Amino acid sequence: MASEGDCGTARCSLSKTLEVVGERWTFLVLREALADTTRFQDFRATLGIASDVLTARLATLVEGGVMVRQSYREPGQRTRQSYHLTESGRQLSLIVGALQQWGDEHLPGPTAPSVTPCTAAGRPVSVRFIDDRGEVLPEDEVRLARMS
Amino acid sequence: MASEGDCGTARCSLSKTLEVVGERWTFLVLREALADTTRFQDFRATLGIASDVLTARLATLVEGGVMVRQSYREPGQRTRQSYHLTESGRQLSLIVGALQQWGDEHLPGPTAPSVTPCTAAGRPVSVRFIDDRGEVLPEDEVRLARMS
Repeated sequence: MASEGDCGTARCSLSKTLEVVGERWTFLVLREALADTTRFQDFRATLGIASDVLTARLATLVEGGVMVRQSYREPGQRTRQSYHLTESGRQLSLIVGALQQWGDEHLPGPTAPSVTPCTAAGRPVSVRFIDDRGEVLPEDEVRLARMS
Repeated sequence: MASEGDCGTARCSLSKTLEVVGERWTFLVLREALADTTRFQDFRATLGIASDVLTARLATLVEGGVMVRQSYREPGQRTRQSYHLTESGRQLSLIVGALQQWGDEHLPGPTAPSVTPCTAAGRPVSVRFIDDRGEVLPEDEVRLARMS
């Protein structure tokens, strides 16, 4: 059991997760990556993010094992970097999907959502709690229980 | 449709959501709130968070409408503040649950998870993608599609 004061430290898996993904721009970078953006310049153009911030966030994601860096070169151009989600990175889709879903419901922007989670065939999907029998549960029927 | 550069601005619901919840300590504060912590001193003791940081994060959560501040007073003590999740705040359980679940799988700490989502009756629950027929989908079968 985690003792007092432990929950904000490196001993806690949520805290460790937030060391990798817990910054505002990181979630936006991940959303673009999940929508198949890979090139530095494309992240920059879509998000309107400063180069140095983007460089720092991508470095944290690579260090955290959720992205890998690759080099590519187009004819007549210098070598550039692209960034690709690893398997664990792709599983962050659930977190980004939950954030986007809450925002679309509670803080909608003036434009439609820019991305939406769906199946390969284009069927809409949502993020939900399910119990151990596969039943969907409303958020307000779920509580976070302390383990002791 | 969101145009280039829009996705990192206030026009986007994910971006607006991250203005409220997108900081490392905020998710930890929310996790404690979802586990029924309400008093300033209890957040502080459980998380080991500095008072000024905790004050700032709670203020952002109140301003964002996910928490409300109340006063309470115990016999012989001065009036103190407690913080309570609103309905929209309680729905953040899905985001916190998704973060905790990813962390428990990919970055487990040396101790067991400090909190775990469950039903009122104590049955374990997990966060999953489900499609419009109620079928559970693996994370890697879900993509974020751009709306255009």
